[in-house]
Amino acid sequence: MNEKPWESLEKTVLQETPFVLVREKLRSHTGAELVYTYVPGRHNWVTVFPVTGDKTVLLIRQYRHIWGEFFLELPAGGGNPSEAPVHAAQRELQEEVGATSSDWIALPSYRAPGLFAAIIHPFLALDCDRIALPQHEDGELMEVLEVSLPEAFQMLEDGLINEASNIIAMLRAKAILQAKGLLA
Amino acid sequence: MNEKPWESLEKTVLQETPFVLVREKLRSHTGAELVYTYVPGRHNWVTVFPVTGDKTVLLIRQYRHIWGEFFLELPAGGGNPSEAPVHAAQRELQEEVGATSSDWIALPSYRAPGLFAAIIHPFLALDCDRIALPQHEDGELMEVLEVSLPEAFQMLEDGLINEASNIIAMLRAKAILQAKGLLA
Repeated sequence: MNEKPWESLEKTVLQETPFVLVREKLRSHTGAELVYTYVPGRHNWVTVFPVTGDKTVLLIRQYRHIWGEFFLELPAGGGNPSEAPVHAAQRELQEEVGATSSDWIALPSYRAPGLFAAIIHPFLALDCDRIALPQHEDGELMEVLEVSLPEAFQMLEDGLINEASNIIAMLRAKAILQAKGLLA
Repeated sequence: MNEKPWESLEKTVLQETPFVLVREKLRSHTGAELVYTYVPGRHNWVTVFPVTGDKTVLLIRQYRHIWGEFFLELPAGGGNPSEAPVHAAQRELQEEVGATSSDWIALPSYRAPGLFAAIIHPFLALDCDRIALPQHEDGELMEVLEVSLPEAFQMLEDGLINEASNIIAMLRAKAILQAKGLLA
């Protein structure tokens, strides 16, 4: 298998905002014509698992339009171009929760291969402090919810916290929290 | 907060194939106009962690167009409407790997809240047998790769297997494999 096996035949821009979407016609390795729709470029995404000095988790309860429901989630969002992932994580924690942390632990990053080429960077943020009110955009309807660390992991097991980057951040952070004596 | 806080103003269909994409104008809870682009409807997605009777993992090496690279992955795909998740998982394992399993273990499902409303169903499939050649579509360029269970978990730790549903399936399956004496 060679590394660029599909030939691009035509690209159309479906929309420019709120994010660029491209529809591309391709000739595949079988000779067939394919259509691929995707967000072009490379993107960083961050997810933050924020824990305070007294072992409280700072969750958000966020409205998700496509489900018409509120989701219990970790603060998360897209990085700006040229913004280091940890800076994006610090900004999202401040914007969505109004909190800062002095102890950022990078968890293993991973990649989304489907609709957009994203690298997802999960972080564990310890010793978090709520120092300000959150600053939400018009398309963000959310409130902060404080739960204990054991309650947060129970919510994960009960499927109440159930978005992929949230699950990965919590499963990856668990052993670190246990090693630090913060979780049984 | 009420449960349907945003008012739909206008919907446009951006494309009909290979999947429907809708661009919707909304009035948010702040009074601002928002644009949301998404795949309408509810969708099932399945990911299969296939292990044979001699503790071999059946991975696929798949071309991912938006990265222009091959990814090491677990077999996965979308369920058809009205197809039970376990049947979709059985079909994807057969199509992508040419294998069957007599022992399907459902791992905790979770939800995607962003671009499309999907429930992702990860499965551990034990006692897998390769019984046929895979049957690929024109837009699928992949080959089967057999590795041992410890090698697969090393690939996970090294970030060589690095798609979200793959990571979640493997992290969730680990304790089950250990309890069954299949993994140290």
